[in-house]
Amino acid sequence: MDNYSSIGKRLPRVDGAAKATGRALYAGDITLPHMLHGGILRSPYPHAKILTIDTTRAARLPGVKAVLTGKDTAGKKSGVVPYIPSIYDDFILQREKVRYVGDAVACVAAVDEDTVQEALSLIKVEYEPLPAVFDPEKAYEPGAPQIHSHAERNLCFPMLLVHGDMDVGFKASDYIREDRFEVAKKQHCFIENYSSLTRYDAASGGLTVWTATQNPFLVRGYLAHMLDWPESRVTLMNISVGGSFGGKGMLNSDLFCSALLSIRTERPVRLVYTREESFLCGVQKHPMVFYIKVGAKKDGKIQAVDVTVFSNTGAYAGYGPSITLCTCGFLSLTYRMPNYRFDGKTMYTNIPSGGPHRGFGNQQSRFAFEQVLDMLAEDLSMDPVDIRLKNAVVEGDITPDGWKITSCGLSESLERVRERSGWKEKRGKLGNGHGVGVGCTGYIVGGRVFYNYDCAGAFVKFEDDGKVSLIVSSADSGQGIETTLTQIAAEEVGVSPEEIRILLSDTDTAPRNMGAYASRTTLCLGNACRIALKDAKEQLFNIVAEKLEVHPDALEVKDGRIYVKACPEKGLGFKEAVSFAKNEKGQHILGKGYYDPPSEFPGYEDGKGNISPAYSFGAGVAEVRVDTETGSVEFLKETQAQDVGRAINPMQCEGQMEGAVIGAMGQLLYEEIVFEEGKALNPSFQDYKIPTAMDIPETEVILVETNDPEGPFGAKGMSESPEIPPIGAVANALYDAVGVRIKSLPITPEKVLRALKKEK
Amino acid sequence: MDNYSSIGKRLPRVDGAAKATGRALYAGDITLPHMLHGGILRSPYPHAKILTIDTTRAARLPGVKAVLTGKDTAGKKSGVVPYIPSIYDDFILQREKVRYVGDAVACVAAVDEDTVQEALSLIKVEYEPLPAVFDPEKAYEPGAPQIHSHAERNLCFPMLLVHGDMDVGFKASDYIREDRFEVAKKQHCFIENYSSLTRYDAASGGLTVWTATQNPFLVRGYLAHMLDWPESRVTLMNISVGGSFGGKGMLNSDLFCSALLSIRTERPVRLVYTREESFLCGVQKHPMVFYIKVGAKKDGKIQAVDVTVFSNTGAYAGYGPSITLCTCGFLSLTYRMPNYRFDGKTMYTNIPSGGPHRGFGNQQSRFAFEQVLDMLAEDLSMDPVDIRLKNAVVEGDITPDGWKITSCGLSESLERVRERSGWKEKRGKLGNGHGVGVGCTGYIVGGRVFYNYDCAGAFVKFEDDGKVSLIVSSADSGQGIETTLTQIAAEEVGVSPEEIRILLSDTDTAPRNMGAYASRTTLCLGNACRIALKDAKEQLFNIVAEKLEVHPDALEVKDGRIYVKACPEKGLGFKEAVSFAKNEKGQHILGKGYYDPPSEFPGYEDGKGNISPAYSFGAGVAEVRVDTETGSVEFLKETQAQDVGRAINPMQCEGQMEGAVIGAMGQLLYEEIVFEEGKALNPSFQDYKIPTAMDIPETEVILVETNDPEGPFGAKGMSESPEIPPIGAVANALYDAVGVRIKSLPITPEKVLRALKKEK
Repeated sequence: MDNYSSIGKRLPRVDGAAKATGRALYAGDITLPHMLHGGILRSPYPHAKILTIDTTRAARLPGVKAVLTGKDTAGKKSGVVPYIPSIYDDFILQREKVRYVGDAVACVAAVDEDTVQEALSLIKVEYEPLPAVFDPEKAYEPGAPQIHSHAERNLCFPMLLVHGDMDVGFKASDYIREDRFEVAKKQHCFIENYSSLTRYDAASGGLTVWTATQNPFLVRGYLAHMLDWPESRVTLMNISVGGSFGGKGMLNSDLFCSALLSIRTERPVRLVYTREESFLCGVQKHPMVFYIKVGAKKDGKIQAVDVTVFSNTGAYAGYGPSITLCTCGFLSLTYRMPNYRFDGKTMYTNIPSGGPHRGFGNQQSRFAFEQVLDMLAEDLSMDPVDIRLKNAVVEGDITPDGWKITSCGLSESLERVRERSGWKEKRGKLGNGHGVGVGCTGYIVGGRVFYNYDCAGAFVKFEDDGKVSLIVSSADSGQGIETTLTQIAAEEVGVSPEEIRILLSDTDTAPRNMGAYASRTTLCLGNACRIALKDAKEQLFNIVAEKLEVHPDALEVKDGRIYVKACPEKGLGFKEAVSFAKNEKGQHILGKGYYDPPSEFPGYEDGKGNISPAYSFGAGVAEVRVDTETGSVEFLKETQAQDVGRAINPMQCEGQMEGAVIGAMGQLLYEEIVFEEGKALNPSFQDYKIPTAMDIPETEVILVETNDPEGPFGAKGMSESPEIPPIGAVANALYDAVGVRIKSLPITPEKVLRALKKEK
Repeated sequence: MDNYSSIGKRLPRVDGAAKATGRALYAGDITLPHMLHGGILRSPYPHAKILTIDTTRAARLPGVKAVLTGKDTAGKKSGVVPYIPSIYDDFILQREKVRYVGDAVACVAAVDEDTVQEALSLIKVEYEPLPAVFDPEKAYEPGAPQIHSHAERNLCFPMLLVHGDMDVGFKASDYIREDRFEVAKKQHCFIENYSSLTRYDAASGGLTVWTATQNPFLVRGYLAHMLDWPESRVTLMNISVGGSFGGKGMLNSDLFCSALLSIRTERPVRLVYTREESFLCGVQKHPMVFYIKVGAKKDGKIQAVDVTVFSNTGAYAGYGPSITLCTCGFLSLTYRMPNYRFDGKTMYTNIPSGGPHRGFGNQQSRFAFEQVLDMLAEDLSMDPVDIRLKNAVVEGDITPDGWKITSCGLSESLERVRERSGWKEKRGKLGNGHGVGVGCTGYIVGGRVFYNYDCAGAFVKFEDDGKVSLIVSSADSGQGIETTLTQIAAEEVGVSPEEIRILLSDTDTAPRNMGAYASRTTLCLGNACRIALKDAKEQLFNIVAEKLEVHPDALEVKDGRIYVKACPEKGLGFKEAVSFAKNEKGQHILGKGYYDPPSEFPGYEDGKGNISPAYSFGAGVAEVRVDTETGSVEFLKETQAQDVGRAINPMQCEGQMEGAVIGAMGQLLYEEIVFEEGKALNPSFQDYKIPTAMDIPETEVILVETNDPEGPFGAKGMSESPEIPPIGAVANALYDAVGVRIKSLPITPEKVLRALKKEK
């Protein structure tokens, strides 16, 4: 065991009190002097031409300060990957066409919210409805309504990876099977609705933004692009985020419209989505259809996997192509696939746009492949855990996408959940509608996926009172990053966590950090902080070494004391050293650190490139009970292991895993936005069900530590990876329980009942 | 001439539009949710024991949220120089005694300002009045009422400098004269009253502060000390300051009480002084009495100067001892004094406390010495300019205080104002109540005077859009520091000023900077910025050099382009280089810089030590007309030259000089807080006169550039120095005009008339 002081400790969340006592500030909490309220008029049609927009009456309403349409914008299109110009396809405030029910066409700023609503009702829009298409496969059929002029057959973006030789692979296989799976559209269901407050300063020409986002620097760039400004004219303030789960990483109409309205009125404008808007007018998880053909040897060794995916990105591309690319990588990350073909079709349809969701395409593919693997095991009379162990990747492997596995706890995870869950006693033996199933996960830790850098930076100050301040950019949407960084910094500096101050700062003052996505923060920002702290520590050591008359290399710091390694009684307190540096040497210690991981920007055509500096793995065993009368599935228990590299804070890791299991459960059993002709029927928590405290399973979590060579103190990010194993595990447990396979998510009682009837 | 692109240009103020259009935010402008208002109960007695304070009725008043007294504090005493514990003498919220009319005894937070006032009126304080003393010389007499138990004869702090041998000096002198001068108490007369808003966060235990201060880091420290907290628990936000002139560098009762009240109520508390409070309950310029004995040779060469000063620091020490120390240094800075003795008595009296004021003790001494010099010249039949040139210090001199003159434009300044003012034609020849006079200045540029460091730091980011962001701490109270730093940075980086962003940041995120005092910001913070920018530039050069296949030393950057010096057509744009670094090397350029000048912390007992890294000099010729019927003095014209080292922005230098002349004029002719038994009779702009636009003289300013070796691009600070020359020049011009000498400031018509009558 390493002899760490802070790493591995169950430090309570440093931001816990502020959150628990309601003191943390969110964008919608802030009121500025002379602030206006904003609102957005949205399309009632899934697909229509905009003929005319008449804002005259709305603009005349007393209290209305601005009514803006697409004509009042810089005319730029929104998008996320500059290397693919075609996916810059969204005006946000539409000018010619609307492409989903909820598409934005006009916005209003007024003195209060009632006036906003009245003004919106006074805007007259003439539409010419067009035929619409909602299903990604139908959208691909010749003759389907074309949603974007640049995208024939509504193919937003094609990607094709071919690794090895498929013919050889299938020829070498003893068994081959083909299946089709589909996954419904779900929402992130964060508690805080999308909300933005912007203040334009006409004197400086700058725009200050408080917005619910995971990615301050990215969103700053997106907004600046849409305004056609240099990005440093926009400042994103740091603010608490009330949950995001991937959904708050885009530029949405709340921010774009509040910015436009503030610039026009020269007053602050706050725009908060309704719950219905949050459901439909941000982003949701991509529904996907999978066609999977897999071939294996009798011993269970996979020989070839051929996948075609229709990913339904809805009205606009956004992160859609990136998600398809990652889906390709995730599908081939956990198990060795000597021959692999992935045909990823990112499709336009007339439903709301897809976007990142905790997992970034992983749950969808894992729902499919973990079931395929179980079916293969059954065909080959193998134990599901054994077939996984047989194919599991190991340290040193390179996947078909070129992803380089530098540490891997997959097999260990499988073995540990097998043991802890009582797999051997339970599998196939429970009866009475009870069953167990297994599922695995593999995930990225950082993603060089939107730009050819995946950077994070930090400034450090050793304060006069001995505190260590880290100035960084990171949104906290619940992941506990302040606590993680506190522990990393305390360990690196050799002081107690109480001496560390993590200052989550605005985009003006903090060094660039890409954002809180791809489970990257612990590794990328953690490393940036370590580099900055090393820089500062080195300066302090030089001064202390001179005072103690030793070489700086002879020193180390631990428990708040700097001392000579060879002679530990010779030394002085950290605080005293900082004070000495200041008062005797006039040196205030500043540090800076910048980290860009040794990853590769993938080719978007084939997805090849080592996208992440590390990969995390895990496995879970689910236990379920199925009510064969009603078809309802009770998720009783999840035993889950996660390769976290190193648990910086085991308590936070466990919290992430417990939350992830509940997140997976929602997607598995409840969540689906139901559309009828493009119109959502259940965009509210009244009609859209998520798990409550009464529903959640018992969860046993196991932390597997593989000590990743690139991670800070060996740690890998692990906020998304644990949401994956229950997806396969529950689906497989259902089969163990009652012998039916459900190949579409969510696994509703209706589907189970129908399958049970069919089975009989 | 150096070939500079940005240095020396007349760039309009970058913060000009925000200030001119009323968009700049000041502490009193900010309203926070749930904010309370604060107010302070003050002593009606100049000196009294506090027997009891009964807050019961006030606390019961509906709307009152807290009533606090000295008992509710941590019991610490306020002070500024940790090396002199005895001058930590002020509880701010007094516990046992009050020592001036206006001393704070209790404070209230309530829902609105009316309730605050009513609550204050309901607090009952029983006092036992004590005999009081107001005059510093009387306070020193044996048997005078003793104000602080630790200070016998009310001597707050004694200092004594003896340089050379006074006996030898006076023996070597052909002429000796002795004079007495006195200078009245004046206020800074900033437009924005003292104001503070604080928000205590009970969850984090941190206190966020918006306060009108020049010295965010110092005041953070002072407040933390009084709260008995580590200083990083306090965050001072950056905010515009509506004038300060030295008066906003302390911890005053506005901030201390609003902090206490916010901590108690756990709600934000705003406390804004009335104008009367701003006059009396912050700080004012120190009144001083000078006894000067000077001896000189026939040729005008000064041989010995013996000075005794009684500096009236009022009720509490504050910066008083530091000011006396600097007065000693200033008095011997401009003219060589082979033998010099300075006996500086900082005296307690029962008037409001003295504090820093633009000039920091310089006007007072210069008012005395410049007249002494003119009298000496007259005695010796010398021209006043000639006697100054004869004694003027030059580059390489070391003054009696050990101040090392590394660049000096004093003689040049004298010669240029003599020429431009028409001195030879006017001096002694104008008649009709017209006259001209000359006066000089010498000042510090930075002051290692409160702690043994005088530091400033900066963080730098090269933004993705090619902008250069500097993260620094500096209050802008009108001095134009954003513009100065913009030009320094633009020159250093080799881009245009539009590419520079000066981000004046809070004390959490910005590196420590001591504050805006001692005319230090241009030199100290300017150098810190240069060091940080060099750090960043070096990183960029390394990357560009690799791309261009040359050595980094072969590169330079100018006009936004980095190129090979020997082959200027080989290169690339600065913006392009930053983008290359980011996109090809994954390197976001960060820099840090820290500057502590090569100055010395002076011994407080004798004032010896090279307190500043550079010294600035100047001279002025004033032209006046005296109305012999009324005694009123009309200040017609000031011709003034200032050694600025290098004019970063000549327009701003000129503005500083024009403002300084008006500031000097107020002190010369109008300003005095009149006390009667310790009670101020004129603490309002109704009764206390300052110059208006109708009064001000024609001003001709001359910038002398001496290219200081330590200053950024040779620049010295020059915001205080120019306020000095008119002090001597007008007093001397008055004598030239009507033959009378006024030895007490201000030079009121009454004093002139009395002197004219006496003369007759």
